[in-house]
Amino acid sequence: MSNATAVPQVSAPLMAPEAPVLVLASASTARRKVLAAAGLRFEAEAAAVDETAVKESLKAEGATALQAAETLAELKAQRVAVKYPGALVIGADQILSCNDVWFDKPPDGDHAAAHLRALSGKTHELNTAVCAVRNGARAWHHNAVARLTMRALSNTFIAAYLEAAGPEVLTSVGAYQLEGQGAQLFTAVEGDFFTVLGLPLLPLLDFLRANKVVPS
Amino acid sequence: MSNATAVPQVSAPLMAPEAPVLVLASASTARRKVLAAAGLRFEAEAAAVDETAVKESLKAEGATALQAAETLAELKAQRVAVKYPGALVIGADQILSCNDVWFDKPPDGDHAAAHLRALSGKTHELNTAVCAVRNGARAWHHNAVARLTMRALSNTFIAAYLEAAGPEVLTSVGAYQLEGQGAQLFTAVEGDFFTVLGLPLLPLLDFLRANKVVPS
Repeated sequence: MSNATAVPQVSAPLMAPEAPVLVLASASTARRKVLAAAGLRFEAEAAAVDETAVKESLKAEGATALQAAETLAELKAQRVAVKYPGALVIGADQILSCNDVWFDKPPDGDHAAAHLRALSGKTHELNTAVCAVRNGARAWHHNAVARLTMRALSNTFIAAYLEAAGPEVLTSVGAYQLEGQGAQLFTAVEGDFFTVLGLPLLPLLDFLRANKVVPS
Repeated sequence: MSNATAVPQVSAPLMAPEAPVLVLASASTARRKVLAAAGLRFEAEAAAVDETAVKESLKAEGATALQAAETLAELKAQRVAVKYPGALVIGADQILSCNDVWFDKPPDGDHAAAHLRALSGKTHELNTAVCAVRNGARAWHHNAVARLTMRALSNTFIAAYLEAAGPEVLTSVGAYQLEGQGAQLFTAVEGDFFTVLGLPLLPLLDFLRANKVVPS
């Protein structure tokens, strides 16, 4: 378990007595924050999965972006679950699609600008999947889609935005944080805020309550 | 301007060059955070308005909760605008209604528990209004409603939740922060996240772009 990362305590715990060990199979800071803020106590570990290769292969086989997110969420949870026998392992994935093009996290500022030029003036989807795996079996899953409409952005605005938002944008597939300066990119957001952040929290909490991880 | 409060810098500014002075007529930490996170730079000042008296009077006159929120948002903006000639002053208000009962911020933990018992197992509305006032005239307004469904809560859960969430719940009409442990109260949230937080941000940014406060 050498890859497990300490999760910052952002709120007091609100867990069931004798809750099973909970593990989040994700490197995403946004997901860790969402779960910690809701009062969950858990370990977090990034799964060693070549996401780009898996996505390309699934797309070539004709999978939709949401199907690919579901497969990747489970793959990540299964990979981490091997190390945590008996634990409840949460996997999640999010794929941004716009007119059938899938987007990856931009590696640098130039790619982030290219992402924003491609999304400018259009509606894109955040295809989001979350699942729970225990002892090698998927116990639960939930898929959700959020639709975001970006206004038409000038190159001048894109440059000013990337300057203000900083390197944090490179941690997001769309090169934005809706909860930050990214709000200035959009005219409309349809769908749950937690889904936008990459972790459909309310259905997940429902599952965790049924499994006595959080109190009911 | 002795009541003006410093607004914490939570992100780098993303403002138009030579933007007019912007003032938020609100004491709400949540609203200040939302606006600051979006890259806005502004002064913030709580308006001296007896909100409870105004609400009671409006309700007696037959106003809906959304109409009352709209009136209160403008009243707060007008009150503060007197001190800031030429500035763009943003006013906002939110009224929680459930089956025609309007809720006020709970003054203490016992009232917070009573709020939660009253909302348990029901859907309530967050009636939210935002407006902009300049030199005594309302330049713009927007109303939005979010609907939140609370699961049936046991008294044991309510006690555990209030213990974990702490005194912060007293700053919210519903005794919850959806972005904190409050997420454990809900089965469904319908409506914009920023509306839940008390400031419909995307329409406000649209207005601020048109008025050259933020860049387009």
